[in-house]
This record gives sequence, structure tokens and C-alpha cells, in this order.
Amino acid sequence: MKLGKKISEGKTKIVYESDNPNEVILEFKDDITAGDGLKHDIIKDKGYLNAAISAEFFRILNKKGIPTHFIEFTPPRFMKVKSLVMLPVEVVCRRIAAGHLLKRLPIKAGTNFKPGLVELYYKDDEHHDPMINEDHIRILNLGTVDEAREIKEITVKVSDALAEYLTSYGIVLADLKIEFGRDKNNNLVVGDEINGDSCRLWDEKIEGKIYDKDVYRKGAPLNKVKDTYIELYKMLLKKDPKLG
Amino acid sequence: MKLGKKISEGKTKIVYESDNPNEVILEFKDDITAGDGLKHDIIKDKGYLNAAISAEFFRILNKKGIPTHFIEFTPPRFMKVKSLVMLPVEVVCRRIAAGHLLKRLPIKAGTNFKPGLVELYYKDDEHHDPMINEDHIRILNLGTVDEAREIKEITVKVSDALAEYLTSYGIVLADLKIEFGRDKNNNLVVGDEINGDSCRLWDEKIEGKIYDKDVYRKGAPLNKVKDTYIELYKMLLKKDPKLG
Repeated sequence: MKLGKKISEGKTKIVYESDNPNEVILEFKDDITAGDGLKHDIIKDKGYLNAAISAEFFRILNKKGIPTHFIEFTPPRFMKVKSLVMLPVEVVCRRIAAGHLLKRLPIKAGTNFKPGLVELYYKDDEHHDPMINEDHIRILNLGTVDEAREIKEITVKVSDALAEYLTSYGIVLADLKIEFGRDKNNNLVVGDEINGDSCRLWDEKIEGKIYDKDVYRKGAPLNKVKDTYIELYKMLLKKDPKLG
Repeated sequence: MKLGKKISEGKTKIVYESDNPNEVILEFKDDITAGDGLKHDIIKDKGYLNAAISAEFFRILNKKGIPTHFIEFTPPRFMKVKSLVMLPVEVVCRRIAAGHLLKRLPIKAGTNFKPGLVELYYKDDEHHDPMINEDHIRILNLGTVDEAREIKEITVKVSDALAEYLTSYGIVLADLKIEFGRDKNNNLVVGDEINGDSCRLWDEKIEGKIYDKDVYRKGAPLNKVKDTYIELYKMLLKKDPKLG
């Protein structure tokens, strides 16, 4: 895997060119952020742990025939992926009511949604990532209404596939956030990353035991946050991570 | 028209039983409110002017075959309508970008939307009428996703029908808000009221000349607000209102 020129850098990943013009390489950083980026820390090895878990999640989705950008994981923190033109949209699928939804609507924590409740958010820091609908996708020139519906349908499939996989490890998927891009043929493909930063992952048996970034959001010390990411790695990959 | 027992009272209307159990009678009040009800005034005859304009709008829609609750207008301020179980949802159709949309998304004032941009808002004072999507309609037990889509489709028809009618009077329909209910057969029907309180109505030729509640929202004196409602009445009904 040959690392080419740096293309861009976000909060948690750097994108590099690869030797294939249809592919790029992602580097997972050790940065962890919350609250619109207001809270920010560095946790050594977090990029590696998250890259490995993302790779595992994407492998599950690829096996199910869901189109993702994932090609190959090169430890500790690199991932070769299809080059996509990303849509500035976060797609959330909620299986169990938690988080921000409870502040926005009169819905009880823990309510189950079958099929999952899908929400679209426009990624725009200045406007604080407002919720949008399929019509906004159209008027923001991001896609057609039919494509917006396709995005929502794929997201439910992603959610169902990962929930099924996670339940075999004793983990409940409460909700997830994914992002989409278009490949060179203009097909909608799941891109970005999927891991404890973008999912709510709860222990099936131990009430209140969580394996995701909520530990950080709730203010746990950084070593506790790191332990949580290590724990998730061990549960899913059935081995110890090779920490630096 | 026989006024029965009072059933309920809102900010701008009172609902009474009628002698037919499938019908109710609406009384349009002289109250005018804005900003989540924080701004509130009484403008004599406003209920009459709005009832008359609503009746005219509903007649146009009924003629186009769009299902509405409207049966009969009894001046000065009563309207006989089909009894509906109302959905606590405001359905907005934006034809030209204005108002709150400009704060929420990076869209320029005056942008044209074809077809109209439809948005759903859940009527819930405590949560400040949050925007919702079709999936929220489902999880809030208000209807199916297909019914949510039907609501959106009917709303575009309402918007197109009224825009076509208004343009023949030199008025541009920038946006409108309507509400839906279910009749005894569970069909989705346009209910509530449609007039200058719930539409943005702009003069086609005179830049900045408006014929709707924005005059009140922007702080014009109440006699100016009343003049605006009278002006709209005269333009649409081609006669002078019989003021009390």
C-alpha cells in the first residue's frame, strides 16, 4: 500500500491519494471529539482501534452485498477505499430511542423502532448540522428525491446487518450514523467510517454498560474511554489489540 | 346553520358541534398571534376577513378535486366543515425561499423551488414544533410512511392550485402552511384554515409589498395590519368587506 499525496484532513481521518486513481487511502487519527468539536482530546491507539473495528463492520456489509467503499485494512491505521465524492449528509438510523431524539420529540427513552427510524442531517457547522428531508436533498442539489429514499433504504439494511452481527457478540446496536458518497459511476456507496464513534453500542445483559463514544461524551477520564474502545475491539475481533 | 355545543377553542378559531354529527362549525376569532404565541393582539373584523378568504381558497381547492373539509361559509365568521380528526402536523410548502428556512439552511432568499419544497412540523409547543420526516410520522403513530408521502403530494397540489389562482390577481404565493385531518372513512383531508395568516402573499409587481401576516410579524401598527387584510379581501373578492 503506497501512500500518495495528502488530499484532505478531517477531525478523525486524513485522506491520501493511492497509486490507483479510483482509490484513496484513509488514515485514522487518534483524535476524539464531541459536541460540535467543542470537546477534543487525543487518545493514543484510538485511530488503530477504530480503523480495525470499521474494517470489521465494512467486511460484514460487503458480505451482505451492501455497497461500501471498503477495500482493504492495513494495520495499524490505514484503510484502502474506493474514491467517492462524499455527500455532506449524516444519515442516522435509530433502533432504540436515545440521545438527541429524546430532547426533540416526546418519545420515551428505550422505545423500539421497527423498522429503524431514519433521519438525514446536513453537514454544515455554521448551521449546526440541521435535520433535512428528501426535498431538501433535492433543493440543495445533493441528489433526487428517489436517491434520498435509496439512501434511507440502504441505511436500514446497514443497520439490520450490523445489528444482527453485533447481537451474536452480546451487543445491542441502539443507533448508528453513516455517510454516503458517489463512485465514478454515480452509484450511492456507504463511505466514511462506522465504529464506536458513530454507533450507540450497549451490552445486551449489563444495564448501562456501553461500548461507544457516549463514555467520552459523558465525561469519563480518557483512560476509561480508551479501555472502552479496547474492550469493544476484543469482543468483536476475539484477540488483543497490538497497542503502540 | 345551527351552532351547537362548543367543542374546543384554539388561538384563532372556536369549534362548535352542528346538527349533523359528521360536520362541525368553525368560528374565526379576531385574535392574531406570532412567535409561538408570544405576540398577541385583537384586530376587529380580522376573523371575518380571514374566514371569507379561507372560504374562497377552499372553494378553489374543492373545484380542483382536492379533498378539503370546507362545506359552506356563513358570514361574517362561521364556516361549516366536515368533522375531522386533525393530525398535529403543520405541512409547509415553499415555492420561494423566505422566512425561517433562510436561517436553517444556506439557501439564498428568493430562490425558486419547482416543485415546491415540502416540510413537516410536529405541533408540540413544549418542543417548539420540531421539523419531522415521514419516519417520524410513523413512530409518532400519526400515520404510515405512505400516508406521509400522500400528505406531501396533496400539499404540492394545494400549493400549485392556489398559486395559479393567486397569480391571476397579481399575487405571488411564496409559501403556505396547511393542516390535515382524517374523515370518518380515514381519508386524509385538508382542514383548518388557509389565508394571510398561513401563507406568504407578495405583490407580483411591487417589490416588498406583502399581503399576509408578515406585516404583523415585522411590527407594523395594528391599523396597518388590518388594512393589509382588507386589501387582500378586496383584491380576491372584488368587493368591499362589510366591516362591523
